[in-house]
Amino acid sequence: MRKVLLCEINVSEGIDPKKIAAITRALENVEGISIMDINSNPDHNRSVYTFLGDPERVLEGAKRISDAALDQIDMSVHKGSHPRMGAVDVVPFVPIRNVSQEEALKIAREYGRYLGEKGVPVYYYEDAATRPERKLLVNIRKGQYEALEEKMKDPAWIPDEGPFSFCPKWGATVTGVRFALIAFNVNLKTDDLEIGKAIAKAVRFSSGGFHSVRAIALSLEERRQVQVSMNLVNYRMTPIPLVFETVKMLADSYGVAISDAEMVGPVPLDALRDVVTHYLRVRDFNMEQIIETKLIE
Amino acid sequence: MRKVLLCEINVSEGIDPKKIAAITRALENVEGISIMDINSNPDHNRSVYTFLGDPERVLEGAKRISDAALDQIDMSVHKGSHPRMGAVDVVPFVPIRNVSQEEALKIAREYGRYLGEKGVPVYYYEDAATRPERKLLVNIRKGQYEALEEKMKDPAWIPDEGPFSFCPKWGATVTGVRFALIAFNVNLKTDDLEIGKAIAKAVRFSSGGFHSVRAIALSLEERRQVQVSMNLVNYRMTPIPLVFETVKMLADSYGVAISDAEMVGPVPLDALRDVVTHYLRVRDFNMEQIIETKLIE
Repeated sequence: MRKVLLCEINVSEGIDPKKIAAITRALENVEGISIMDINSNPDHNRSVYTFLGDPERVLEGAKRISDAALDQIDMSVHKGSHPRMGAVDVVPFVPIRNVSQEEALKIAREYGRYLGEKGVPVYYYEDAATRPERKLLVNIRKGQYEALEEKMKDPAWIPDEGPFSFCPKWGATVTGVRFALIAFNVNLKTDDLEIGKAIAKAVRFSSGGFHSVRAIALSLEERRQVQVSMNLVNYRMTPIPLVFETVKMLADSYGVAISDAEMVGPVPLDALRDVVTHYLRVRDFNMEQIIETKLIE
Repeated sequence: MRKVLLCEINVSEGIDPKKIAAITRALENVEGISIMDINSNPDHNRSVYTFLGDPERVLEGAKRISDAALDQIDMSVHKGSHPRMGAVDVVPFVPIRNVSQEEALKIAREYGRYLGEKGVPVYYYEDAATRPERKLLVNIRKGQYEALEEKMKDPAWIPDEGPFSFCPKWGATVTGVRFALIAFNVNLKTDDLEIGKAIAKAVRFSSGGFHSVRAIALSLEERRQVQVSMNLVNYRMTPIPLVFETVKMLADSYGVAISDAEMVGPVPLDALRDVVTHYLRVRDFNMEQIIETKLIE
């Protein structure tokens, strides 16, 4: 069976078409990878490249995009609404098929060393974290680019790779290995943000909810609805139907119905297994029954 | 995008391991196809080969299995619990990816002519049917092998290909093109077969139910449950969640709960879209979001 690693590389440029094109070109010249999605957001001033393939080819792709991004981006003049700390901001590697955790970690570390040798301070996060407080991106990125110079003076925030001193042009990069993440948003038939906040608080791990759920509530002004915006960081531990039905149950306790839901970005096929198993009660559904799985090497 | 046609070839031998092996070997020597499933059932005395690939390669595979089956099987001595009329009994071709209806029909007709030239009477069914009464397999196969000699004397049952006279060794073959079929069984927490029969009657097309549903009720003796056993012959027209929720609603009207359900055999990925859309209310779920679709050429 073919080995497949996915990389989602977030770079801090989402406005200048020439710069974005230069970065994109770097990826398009890499053989043996498939580009899944390229998303540039001018408000965020950020572009996200999602691509996959053989681990070594994906490493090559990550290096080439990074080279181009480091050429094009100067963090000392960067503005954007999305939290960020580096020109190459965050680079998760995600095992998809027949890639062991060890193999993915080896790729992430090789990528981290590569950036470090180019002069970029690098922090390892998630499954590649070297200290417990570096596991979560929000901890590493707290204070963002603007706080980085001070933060790096603290011995607790010595980078894992690269120079120990602040680099004004490039900031710092966070890379590591994580499980496939599902961005799942549920829209409520209410414009009362407090109800959304109470539901987000109930389902998210950090305030007592499900193990693998991160959640916030947002107002969708145009729709006059409230959204419970979630990241399911491990759908095996906390399956999608469990989360959806719990949000529905909590909304119902406020007399509020669910309007609809959204899945944003890539979804592993395996995550849909729980949907079939739970709702259709096909307890022993085998993903190999899906005809298309026979078309993958 | 790669062209993919699926073939499900049903041959009337499911007991003798030597004969089954000889037939299987014929398929394994065909390049460029993927075998999805091989199922031999001794009670049925029947084997079902499911394989897929480029249309021309699948045609080649169907010819090679048929050659072997015609060598190995003598219908004049065949016994088995599953309805059958030929050594090569029924051979549906199912377009899966980037194959037009016309292209699939061309393959089915080329296959039918091939068998006809070898001396097997052939009837076209489903989307390849030449007359309305030949659309359904049950009509063509009515009376089975034993009634075939008489049936073929009726001008209404002149074969579409091959000799116009009965062939004792090979019976007759039915081939054609159909949409991907989903075998979906729902098990009820009751041993009252009458309740199962009433539900099957309500959901199936032939007695007033859904357009694309065929259904019968069965007793599952060991489980002391009743099964509503369905073929969903067009999941685009009649989606799985609509059928499942209707069965649940009807069972509930008898005060009966659903125990579980089964999907048997191949399922097209696309059929799971409705499950996500209906239950999770992700109205605009795009199958291209599924990571594995990027691994298919």
